[in-house]
Amino acid sequence: MADPAYVAVDWGTSSFRLWLIGKDNSILGESRSNEGMTTAAKTGFAEVLASHLEKVNAPAHLPVIVCGMAGAKQGWVEAGYIDVPASLSSILTGAVPVPGQSRDVRILPGLAQRDETRPDVMRGEETQLLGALGPASTGSQAVCMPGTHSKWVHVEDGLVTGFSSFMTGELFDAISKHTILSHAVAGAEQAPSDDAAFASAVRQAYDHPALATNLFFTARSGQLLHGLTAAGAQARISGTLIGLEIAGALADTGTGANVTLVAAGRLQGLYEAAFRALSLSYTTIDADVAVRGGLAAAAKAIWPN
Amino acid sequence: MADPAYVAVDWGTSSFRLWLIGKDNSILGESRSNEGMTTAAKTGFAEVLASHLEKVNAPAHLPVIVCGMAGAKQGWVEAGYIDVPASLSSILTGAVPVPGQSRDVRILPGLAQRDETRPDVMRGEETQLLGALGPASTGSQAVCMPGTHSKWVHVEDGLVTGFSSFMTGELFDAISKHTILSHAVAGAEQAPSDDAAFASAVRQAYDHPALATNLFFTARSGQLLHGLTAAGAQARISGTLIGLEIAGALADTGTGANVTLVAAGRLQGLYEAAFRALSLSYTTIDADVAVRGGLAAAAKAIWPN
Repeated sequence: MADPAYVAVDWGTSSFRLWLIGKDNSILGESRSNEGMTTAAKTGFAEVLASHLEKVNAPAHLPVIVCGMAGAKQGWVEAGYIDVPASLSSILTGAVPVPGQSRDVRILPGLAQRDETRPDVMRGEETQLLGALGPASTGSQAVCMPGTHSKWVHVEDGLVTGFSSFMTGELFDAISKHTILSHAVAGAEQAPSDDAAFASAVRQAYDHPALATNLFFTARSGQLLHGLTAAGAQARISGTLIGLEIAGALADTGTGANVTLVAAGRLQGLYEAAFRALSLSYTTIDADVAVRGGLAAAAKAIWPN
Repeated sequence: MADPAYVAVDWGTSSFRLWLIGKDNSILGESRSNEGMTTAAKTGFAEVLASHLEKVNAPAHLPVIVCGMAGAKQGWVEAGYIDVPASLSSILTGAVPVPGQSRDVRILPGLAQRDETRPDVMRGEETQLLGALGPASTGSQAVCMPGTHSKWVHVEDGLVTGFSSFMTGELFDAISKHTILSHAVAGAEQAPSDDAAFASAVRQAYDHPALATNLFFTARSGQLLHGLTAAGAQARISGTLIGLEIAGALADTGTGANVTLVAAGRLQGLYEAAFRALSLSYTTIDADVAVRGGLAAAAKAIWPN
């Protein structure tokens, strides 16, 4: 087994993931929990990190590179934002050291788009992006990182020129739980997914984005008039949101860009199905692989030996 | 004071409104409560109606005409739907009598659009529509009835050719209360409204509907990067939803139709501001006047003397 080189941490709002990385880039240990920023802000960031370092038996001297919400204003140490347009490699240079630690702990900055009409921010996804494309990518790239607040980033020859957050995941939850459609989707989780209803909703929303909030309502009226199932209603809501997101993102980046999907699990399946429904080509990169790749690039830039 | 002619009732999901109407069409008495369908389904529809009839001293023989959710499957007596395309006057002929009552009580039907891809239903708004346009309207009309589920109806020479529900009001509540934007809007109700932020969001969403869920997110990023206020964030959410709704509705009906807004109070102000922001002309009809007008037309058709 290789000697450990550094510790990589992806510290989100509601989740914590840590990997012990070897000098040959192998994963020597891993520890995950739901001690995201929200929890750690109460229990202590240093204490949460220490408990996970102990679980993977990280040597006392080993440095730690962190990305995500730990660098937010409400996080551990504010790591600020790098303003776009920004080169992917500039992310590597903005890491902020956490003072008063027995080992070298650094938090990577986020990205900010200080546009008057389309202001936007990200924390954590910039590191996934770096890992997905590498610091010296070429050509026109559209990178989709789905989630609670999906991020679409436009990169031209390694320069991040702009990005947009879409509230897709959070709206899916709010609509499914806190509107009249909660009745329409009741029991959907116990049924097989309705892939045809999903693909059809993706296409409708992509072709007619202005009808989005009407298409949501058809999850209910479709049950009243056409016997739509709960799984079908759920598929219509998620398909409408994802079709709307893709329409908005491609209106920004143009359909000529290479689309890279950075995702895993259920979201990967949904977005791949949506791209297929729209006959859009794409390349998928695993989200964990991407974030570890970005953290590795940062670790190597900061601690070259 | 004129003799009473009939009782008019608008029985919604969460509200009950009753008027005692005179032979000269004057309002002789009025009674309102929150005993909508949801409440009355538990406490009894007949009992709720009787208590309000007593409040306005309605004579024992006086007939009652009802519109709204009292005619839904989960309501008092199911009044069914009339399928579109349908003439406005056909609504007058579909009233269903409530059996076993000591007086003549009739519930008006709703409208259904049994379209495969855009199924839709309404109950109550068809009566507002009848009152707003009259049974024999001419020309191409787009009628906007904003609310929890805003309805836009397209009428051609008195024929309802199609309609769409937009979940604008309910999404505003769900987004403001059950997403990360709840922090962004906290305290907005105590501040003056931000009319400029509202108008700007209406225009952005109307021009770029595919960006809707991104525009919501700018309520948060605008606070992080530009010091947007809580009132500004709230205005961006409601402006985005209303701009999106208008874009979707006019994509259906075309911008050549006369737009009639049937509304009152706060919603009337918001929609009028949105139409002005988009330089769209419109005519406003008070929602209460409209629903009483529709109920009056039905009462006169059913009980001509």
